Amino acid sequence: MDYVKINDLALKLTRKLIESQGFYGANVKVLPTGQTIVDLTNGTRESGRILGEICMGGLGSVKFNSNTIDGYYFPSLDVYTSHPVISCMASQLAGWSVKLKKDIEKDGKIKTKVVFQSLASGPARAKAKGEELFKEINYFDDSNCAVIVFETRTMPNEEVMSIITQKCGVPPENTYAICAPTASLTGCIQVAARIVETGIHKLHEIHFPLDVIIDGFGSVPIAPVAKDDFTAMGPPNDAMFAVGQTYYTIDVEKDQEDELFNLLKKAPASSSSSYGKPFNVIFKEAEFDFYKIDPGLFAPALYMVNNIKTGNTITIGKLDIALLKQSFGLS
Amino acid sequence: MDYVKINDLALKLTRKLIESQGFYGANVKVLPTGQTIVDLTNGTRESGRILGEICMGGLGSVKFNSNTIDGYYFPSLDVYTSHPVISCMASQLAGWSVKLKKDIEKDGKIKTKVVFQSLASGPARAKAKGEELFKEINYFDDSNCAVIVFETRTMPNEEVMSIITQKCGVPPENTYAICAPTASLTGCIQVAARIVETGIHKLHEIHFPLDVIIDGFGSVPIAPVAKDDFTAMGPPNDAMFAVGQTYYTIDVEKDQEDELFNLLKKAPASSSSSYGKPFNVIFKEAEFDFYKIDPGLFAPALYMVNNIKTGNTITIGKLDIALLKQSFGLS
Amino acid sequence: MDYVKINDLALKLTRKLIESQGFYGANVKVLPTGQTIVDLTNGTRESGRILGEICMGGLGSVKFNSNTIDGYYFPSLDVYTSHPVISCMASQLAGWSVKLKKDIEKDGKIKTKVVFQSLASGPARAKAKGEELFKEINYFDDSNCAVIVFETRTMPNEEVMSIITQKCGVPPENTYAICAPTASLTGCIQVAARIVETGIHKLHEIHFPLDVIIDGFGSVPIAPVAKDDFTAMGPPNDAMFAVGQTYYTIDVEKDQEDELFNLLKKAPASSSSSYGKPFNVIFKEAEFDFYKIDPGLFAPALYMVNNIKTGNTITIGKLDIALLKQSFGLS
Repeated sequence: MDYVKINDLALKLTRKLIESQGFYGANVKVLPTGQTIVDLTNGTRESGRILGEICMGGLGSVKFNSNTIDGYYFPSLDVYTSHPVISCMASQLAGWSVKLKKDIEKDGKIKTKVVFQSLASGPARAKAKGEELFKEINYFDDSNCAVIVFETRTMPNEEVMSIITQKCGVPPENTYAICAPTASLTGCIQVAARIVETGIHKLHEIHFPLDVIIDGFGSVPIAPVAKDDFTAMGPPNDAMFAVGQTYYTIDVEKDQEDELFNLLKKAPASSSSSYGKPFNVIFKEAEFDFYKIDPGLFAPALYMVNNIKTGNTITIGKLDIALLKQSFGLS
Repeated sequence: MDYVKINDLALKLTRKLIESQGFYGANVKVLPTGQTIVDLTNGTRESGRILGEICMGGLGSVKFNSNTIDGYYFPSLDVYTSHPVISCMASQLAGWSVKLKKDIEKDGKIKTKVVFQSLASGPARAKAKGEELFKEINYFDDSNCAVIVFETRTMPNEEVMSIITQKCGVPPENTYAICAPTASLTGCIQVAARIVETGIHKLHEIHFPLDVIIDGFGSVPIAPVAKDDFTAMGPPNDAMFAVGQTYYTIDVEKDQEDELFNLLKKAPASSSSSYGKPFNVIFKEAEFDFYKIDPGLFAPALYMVNNIKTGNTITIGKLDIALLKQSFGLS
Repeated sequence: MDYVKINDLALKLTRKLIESQGFYGANVKVLPTGQTIVDLTNGTRESGRILGEICMGGLGSVKFNSNTIDGYYFPSLDVYTSHPVISCMASQLAGWSVKLKKDIEKDGKIKTKVVFQSLASGPARAKAKGEELFKEINYFDDSNCAVIVFETRTMPNEEVMSIITQKCGVPPENTYAICAPTASLTGCIQVAARIVETGIHKLHEIHFPLDVIIDGFGSVPIAPVAKDDFTAMGPPNDAMFAVGQTYYTIDVEKDQEDELFNLLKKAPASSSSSYGKPFNVIFKEAEFDFYKIDPGLFAPALYMVNNIKTGNTITIGKLDIALLKQSFGLS
């Protein structure tokens, strides 16, 4: 797959945002050091859709849909990719921890302060290749540009962007950051667009082989926008855990199928010991310590998996409308 | 938002119709006075979708979807915009009454006859700005063209189009009219595409502030095509009143929220005293006098409203499948 | 409709596959005789969608959707066209039987062997016009190219392609074949994209007039990929028979309507004597002899038909979830 250049593809989508800033609600700024920042804090619904596709390195499709569930109406997303490992794991996963520390002198003492910190996603990760994960992914992106995505309200400055430029080994003027905070229309859509990635990430966690997955399709309602970035983590995650649906097409020999289908029992969010309450409640009960939450919670509600080698299909998990309503504050 | 030019955006879409007339079922004619008429009387499904987006000044997305309700199958529309006020109120609303009268001599007396009359919608309204409503909308369109939409089977002639050209202050050769009658495939889709606009218009009627609405999303089945333009008014309207669903994202302070959420009780069509029968029955009972029908009827069945300042979401209204089936003649 | 050039439109879509081979999973080869073969054996989901549109001669839209039925999650297709006769009958129907025989000498005797055999679909059929059906279709395609689609795992060779080139009367270098086997992701989607065509084909079989149909819209789940091309015929067909939904818009005078609406009772798959079991079971019971299966089986589950002349709508057929689950192997 070397000849698919995900940063080039993502840049093509980024250029749409830049060329029609008014339409997309994009605030675009070129830094003195050359990098471009696309701020989608006030981004539109459509810019959320495109940001989802940028996160997937241009190898995934993100489309709006709508559902009526139990008398409620939900704008939702359908997401699909036939390049699931590259688009989800090498690009969309928020796996790069970008941190900028500064030594600050105060009262004659030098203290180190974190001035920027954000998990980054997007195809720039596949240029930097700083994560362990990339040892498992056989992909080289020949693009001469880098597009990184920050889920943040604080824009990265020249120093942060110079780190990205340097780690990616591309010219500064070919380095782009797209930013949207969690508590924004664009942000909520960008997170919902992770439905297929969330499903694959969980599969990876339970040691399901990635290279057998040839296609992923997923659907999830778009969460309401919450009052602040902290609270806003809850509903989009709950939407995935409670009613997120995924359909993966895999290619494995018959003798491996039983084992893998059996493994899938651990895949849905409901298989997690932390499952059953809205995320914000779980997080509070864990005293806001991520490490106290079972990582197995981060998964869709439903997996359907079709093995093209045998034609067999397995369905694991089920939808939990009550949990969805509780999280979204519907009654 | 001055830098979004809705007539330019609509013209881009109009050019697609003109360039592929066979595909779109468009009949295109340039008048001796320079204006272009795109007649979609025999337009295709896709041209209805594009006409919906033209009506929204290129700021809204109109997409086909489908639903199975109660054993019936309904092609439907999903419509969304993050520029709800400009696209719906300044453009899509059929708010410009275009009328051409002629003095005709008969038996030595001069009588005034109406030779063309149609409510017009589309972005040309925002160039002409002849309506009171524009005092409430802070938007200026810098385009040097005008695109107007008539729901009519009678094409506007040179005199009618010269009025449009003059009121919009654009060159005649940059003036375009797109026309589709109510009782046509294209017409039915164009009306269904008004789901988000119908919802906002009703909000405006009940004095809900427009400037707090940052996004609108809506879905509605496409009505069957009726036998004539008069009868054809019914089913598309009933589809909205009975099962039209809308989801608005607003941004208001906590202390204003209670009042606005309370106001929403008056929003759904079912809150109207005229609600409960197919529109054509109501209209007949009103002796075909629009002023006898409660204007509050013209609204979607369901509103969901998410306030991003508080994260709260309210749901008002419900779906009425029986009314839908009665209107569409399904049994 | 002479001015719609379906081979030109299909070639435009084909070029997308050729230009982004990595993205689409396309294997492209130019034969020494000049024709181009696009092999989609390892094609992506998106290439299946585009192949569906190519089959429809660029006059139909094929879009992904998704449905939750009875606790199962189904990626599905919405398909629509306002050129139903040209796109479905003159192009998408697999009506051209392409066969290449060779005389082979063995033990001094000459034996005739079939070296390639495949039913072909796509707009090339409307250039070759070798089928009886074309006597009923008033359409001439002025394109100087030909695009043919084979549902096969065996690529056509120079000799096969030279037959296509010659029958279509176009230059070899303007002749394109797109190939996808039945048991592939792309193949399954290509078959599902036939929902509107399958419905019209059955209407034609029961002598419903074609020229009154002005629009077709249909939806069907995408079947899981089966283990081999033979088995793979079953699920996509069953999806249509069991839950395929269609909506046709027709234009007939009142006095003809009763007769046509009555005729529609024979349209749904469930009206067939062969209906009720998964296709692969029926086929086995028929000792793999197609001629023992009632051809009336090949139809959608549900027809809704709206006559724009009267505004009347009829609904015939119903969904059979149990049959769908049985065919797809869901439990």
